[in-house]
Amino acid sequence: MSLPNHFELLATNGAARTGRLTTPHGVVRTPAFMPVGTAGAMKGMHWREVRDAGADIVLGNTYHLMLRPGAERIAALGGLQAFTGWNGPMLTDSGGFQVMSLSDLRKVSEKAVTFRSHIDGAKVELSPERSIEVQRLLGSDIAMQMDECVRLSPDRSNHSITDIERAMRLSLRWAERSKRAFESAPEGYMLFGIVQGGDIPEMRHISARELVDIGFHGYAIGGLAVGEPQSVMLAMIEETAPALPADRPRYLMGVGTPEDLLEAVARGIDMFDCVMPTRNGRHGMAFTRFGQINLRNARHADDPRPLDEESEWPSARNISRAYLHHLVRSGETLGAMLLSEINVAYYQHLMQGMRDAIASGTFETFQNKTRAGWAKGDIPPR
Amino acid sequence: MSLPNHFELLATNGAARTGRLTTPHGVVRTPAFMPVGTAGAMKGMHWREVRDAGADIVLGNTYHLMLRPGAERIAALGGLQAFTGWNGPMLTDSGGFQVMSLSDLRKVSEKAVTFRSHIDGAKVELSPERSIEVQRLLGSDIAMQMDECVRLSPDRSNHSITDIERAMRLSLRWAERSKRAFESAPEGYMLFGIVQGGDIPEMRHISARELVDIGFHGYAIGGLAVGEPQSVMLAMIEETAPALPADRPRYLMGVGTPEDLLEAVARGIDMFDCVMPTRNGRHGMAFTRFGQINLRNARHADDPRPLDEESEWPSARNISRAYLHHLVRSGETLGAMLLSEINVAYYQHLMQGMRDAIASGTFETFQNKTRAGWAKGDIPPR
Repeated sequence: MSLPNHFELLATNGAARTGRLTTPHGVVRTPAFMPVGTAGAMKGMHWREVRDAGADIVLGNTYHLMLRPGAERIAALGGLQAFTGWNGPMLTDSGGFQVMSLSDLRKVSEKAVTFRSHIDGAKVELSPERSIEVQRLLGSDIAMQMDECVRLSPDRSNHSITDIERAMRLSLRWAERSKRAFESAPEGYMLFGIVQGGDIPEMRHISARELVDIGFHGYAIGGLAVGEPQSVMLAMIEETAPALPADRPRYLMGVGTPEDLLEAVARGIDMFDCVMPTRNGRHGMAFTRFGQINLRNARHADDPRPLDEESEWPSARNISRAYLHHLVRSGETLGAMLLSEINVAYYQHLMQGMRDAIASGTFETFQNKTRAGWAKGDIPPR
Repeated sequence: MSLPNHFELLATNGAARTGRLTTPHGVVRTPAFMPVGTAGAMKGMHWREVRDAGADIVLGNTYHLMLRPGAERIAALGGLQAFTGWNGPMLTDSGGFQVMSLSDLRKVSEKAVTFRSHIDGAKVELSPERSIEVQRLLGSDIAMQMDECVRLSPDRSNHSITDIERAMRLSLRWAERSKRAFESAPEGYMLFGIVQGGDIPEMRHISARELVDIGFHGYAIGGLAVGEPQSVMLAMIEETAPALPADRPRYLMGVGTPEDLLEAVARGIDMFDCVMPTRNGRHGMAFTRFGQINLRNARHADDPRPLDEESEWPSARNISRAYLHHLVRSGETLGAMLLSEINVAYYQHLMQGMRDAIASGTFETFQNKTRAGWAKGDIPPR
């Protein structure tokens, strides 16, 4: 059954696309990067700063939120947008990926995943139906189907073709169940299916085709950025994106570096999420048009210059490298706070640059200029 | 030698006073509470939030800053105001108190305190002259003389009259040396002397009299809030404040709870500093007109109400107790960030209330109303 389409494609430039996705809590400009507010909070940032940085939509983690404070509690408090005060569009993952990576004693069956909470050890069952129920209780604008993801490794030591096919087939059956469970959702809310299939083109084709047959509001590419080289990830996007309907949004899950975003948009991806801007910020790293800068480095200790005097983001333009270095070295929370907002703002600035370039048909020029800036590296020490 | 006076007394109400202290980086309205930005940063707060919360002046810790990033480095970067981006009035302590409480292998002699840095174990000497030099390098608007503080204890087990007198006399000799070292400071910058003398009225009288004879821009009362009961602290203020010149600012160091501030202002104190609003915020405690509220408490888990719907501070008025509870329980940085700003804003709100009440001659009414609010306690659970 075909589902209503809330995505409007505004322009394309090669395979790159720019558009608008309308959700119950507002419009998302694509290509969009979603900062990750794991447990209902963006680490080190106020929500007003996330908004100011240019983010239209953020991601919340179903696994964390269902365990604490609990989906029923959040629903009683008016949903995740009201609960957190973010009040904008929100996508939630299904919880499945983090069950696999964070919890102990997990057991995957056809029916559900059973696991022990990493918080209090309680035994919890997460089925595709319960995942959708939880995401509906959270009030998520975009819910994700539950799937199973196989971790890839550069030498294929960690995964077999049998594993990948089994997980891909299970994910398809869970996709059908997720869609049925989502039928009662009010108009405007969306459910995305997730293409699996590891690093095997044939599996990706099967997964994409069968998901499109089931029919979703949008489609995600899952099971990438889980240990494989970038070249494999890009090859899998090239295999998958053309198999997805051009009029629906495409979301590459858990990606990535600024370089990854540029390459993936060039291959037709519309949405991304990643903890990298905030996590690397907490570790003293800044993303800039000069590439990634390690503020722990002693070269910054006496440098009164800002990270980037031409940045549109005040903290990147006004605060000295010397001060950031001091904060990072001293373990001051303010260092993590400033670098998190600087990084989220840089990611959003990059997305805006891509959207503008695609709209004006200059995406390749933008790509080359952006790559050249990163390749040139940071300004020389004084 | 008398020093220029930068303090203007605007009104008194009983012993309570309100005024204006003009520093090279701006005007401080008194009574003033100085949030503590230990190592050049307010823990969990952006400087813009400290300003928005209503703080005119903040305190920096000489001990921390001289060890990292170093006073000479901060001077080369334009001073602490430019380095941090706070850009407003700043008071620094002498470093002596934290040498005593934080460093190992300290040795106090007539000449100086020698200690090992808690950061890298380096041997450092801090004399009254070096303390002033460091504070001048930092660009502090108000420098403090170096002194020695004896920790008090309710049962007097920890301190003897001999100890207290010896430390008080040493502090007076260091006061003279500090003043000489400060002579070259440009006009407008200030040096405060510190009254010592433990919990012995006679010692406080001697210390105050001799400091006034030396002559400072302002006077601090030190060696309180170091373990003694509140009644002893208030008694010592009552002994000391009248012995200080009425036209100079009086600063009670390291104090305190909102109750302490109210009582001390009633006894003629003009300035305070304390880590309590930010430290307690990091531990899940909120200061409000209902008293102190522990957000870890399960009673808040389902409570959609804000901490105080009549607060002037947006986060105290708009964010639910349920969300704050969740953030605190989850160890999310945002919880500490929000409670720190809420607490600093409450402290500033309290100071503004006191300033207004003194100016309008209604301080006693304000005191009674404020105490009644705290005594009544938090709003009942729903």
